[in-house]
Amino acid sequence: MQLNIKRIVILAEGCLAILHGKTAIGVLRYRGQDVVAVIDSTQAGKDIRTIVQTQYQVPIVSSLEEALKFQPDSLLIGFAPIGGFLPEEYRQTVLEAIHKGLDIVSGLHYLLNDDPEFAAAAKQAGIMIYDVRRPEPDNYVARGFAKNLKANTVLFIGSDCACGKMTAAFECHLEAKKRGYKSEFLATGQTGIMIANGGIPLDRVIGDFMAGEIEKILMKYPVDTQFVFIEGQGSILHPGYSGVTLALMHGSMPKTMILCHEAGRNEIDEYQGFPFPPFPEIIQMHEQLLKYVRPSKVVGIALNTKWISEAEALKEIDKFEKETGLPTTDPVRFGAAKLIDTLEKYL
Amino acid sequence: MQLNIKRIVILAEGCLAILHGKTAIGVLRYRGQDVVAVIDSTQAGKDIRTIVQTQYQVPIVSSLEEALKFQPDSLLIGFAPIGGFLPEEYRQTVLEAIHKGLDIVSGLHYLLNDDPEFAAAAKQAGIMIYDVRRPEPDNYVARGFAKNLKANTVLFIGSDCACGKMTAAFECHLEAKKRGYKSEFLATGQTGIMIANGGIPLDRVIGDFMAGEIEKILMKYPVDTQFVFIEGQGSILHPGYSGVTLALMHGSMPKTMILCHEAGRNEIDEYQGFPFPPFPEIIQMHEQLLKYVRPSKVVGIALNTKWISEAEALKEIDKFEKETGLPTTDPVRFGAAKLIDTLEKYL
Repeated sequence: MQLNIKRIVILAEGCLAILHGKTAIGVLRYRGQDVVAVIDSTQAGKDIRTIVQTQYQVPIVSSLEEALKFQPDSLLIGFAPIGGFLPEEYRQTVLEAIHKGLDIVSGLHYLLNDDPEFAAAAKQAGIMIYDVRRPEPDNYVARGFAKNLKANTVLFIGSDCACGKMTAAFECHLEAKKRGYKSEFLATGQTGIMIANGGIPLDRVIGDFMAGEIEKILMKYPVDTQFVFIEGQGSILHPGYSGVTLALMHGSMPKTMILCHEAGRNEIDEYQGFPFPPFPEIIQMHEQLLKYVRPSKVVGIALNTKWISEAEALKEIDKFEKETGLPTTDPVRFGAAKLIDTLEKYL
Repeated sequence: MQLNIKRIVILAEGCLAILHGKTAIGVLRYRGQDVVAVIDSTQAGKDIRTIVQTQYQVPIVSSLEEALKFQPDSLLIGFAPIGGFLPEEYRQTVLEAIHKGLDIVSGLHYLLNDDPEFAAAAKQAGIMIYDVRRPEPDNYVARGFAKNLKANTVLFIGSDCACGKMTAAFECHLEAKKRGYKSEFLATGQTGIMIANGGIPLDRVIGDFMAGEIEKILMKYPVDTQFVFIEGQGSILHPGYSGVTLALMHGSMPKTMILCHEAGRNEIDEYQGFPFPPFPEIIQMHEQLLKYVRPSKVVGIALNTKWISEAEALKEIDKFEKETGLPTTDPVRFGAAKLIDTLEKYL
């Protein structure tokens, strides 16, 4: 799927400063040069760089009407609610954007092209609705071929959803390219796809074919590829999404893994009563699940420290290094060099 | 999905005596009273009870034409190829059956209702095509509610696909009912659904919603249910299907587990280079994946000994009991009493 958009307005009402704005935040950080405005009336007028870690100075406005002054060509839905429905209060905003001639980019499970009202409006206005979470249908079952890949295929696993797996993978990809490596970023979720202009919305794929979709993409990279940074999905500890995670582990059969975690989180977010195991046990569980498939090691930890101070972040990093013996850093805050230094050893 | 069929012909060409005929075999064994004939030209004329363990004396014929003499009302596709396509050589047989006024029952991933040629023929002939693998769409994500169920929810896990999980679960369900328990059988695959007239084709569900579909069904059983026997899917060791398996584990959060295995198999079937771990390790892996969700134990082993003699079977059972310390039996060959004796302790 190729997204032909250049002047993006992101709809992030009420969620620019919270977790569910992760699509907005990811696009702002890694594709901010194409964003002309962000809609979030709760943050309007503020300097975006005080809210989101991005180098791009993008105006925050309180309505679509205001955003139109910046001559956008598209409206990108920047939140990711559980279940992936479009909240009813934003239906009108999306319809208005269509009437104004904007293309729509959505990563929701609820496919806007399948909604008769949106489909009719899109046809009338002559615009495109990009449902990036619509996978191409293909009943291919993984055969286990990815275990023979020469490249260092690095899978970003996590303690939970929304803890920074896509971000850590993309930061590592940027650092590897900076060092001159032939590197690929394999996007497996809607935000990654919006940034990379390609990939597979894995959590939308039919159960039996999830691993196969990953294997297919991996087998198509050039043989001289040195790194593939694979965006992780969910967590093997997550009561709702763990199936997607294990399919990704077995479809990719990674050479190495980086464990991603949000500092301070102790249990599955938005659920009750599902605490994390000790981190050495989390690591052992992942390694054991790959042991008889392709022996693979967790070789580093990407810690998301966005909610704590720099001093606290350094303390947390130190704590994780002592507990696990693995190089640990926050690749957004401190750069991905430490992780690439380690990953280079597995080329 | 309610299947309104009473006089079934099973299409099992070339596969009655092999693993890929598992749909045919399951229906013959547990719903044989509704089967009027089986098509398999390689076995035609033989006594079916010398090939399949069933109490029903069903004629084996070599063509649809012969089968029509038994006045069937439906043709059931009895094989389950990898990827779930309809092999091209059987397209004509299915079309002929439609023209003769037979309903079609298919558990293939390839949905016959979506095939223009079949759909048109069905309409013209006024017959039904039951695609039992078409799930009802519903974007529900599991919330982890199943961990609070009072019933003994028993999940049948396995070392591999097609090793007897559905069969073991159904045999246990029959034994529990015989003992007077309020028991449910939760079918999660096409054969189970064909036998039980309901359930969810889990491997066909979109990744994010697999666990949720299981949770939804479990939460609807009457509160005084004593046993739920949950048909397992795939294996956490399987390179292609493991995601479905873990989703089922987390969606059902079972109170207990029964490990299913085909005696003599040492690695993933039809794959190369994916050996099974030692059985104590397989057990520990499953228990660890549930440890922080709902502590659950593997409490027995269902050994599929169909390919070996009775003397060898008893030896294998003894070996597994010694290696794992768990009660082991082949529920088809020796009955499920031993397993229910154990499972009663967890009511």
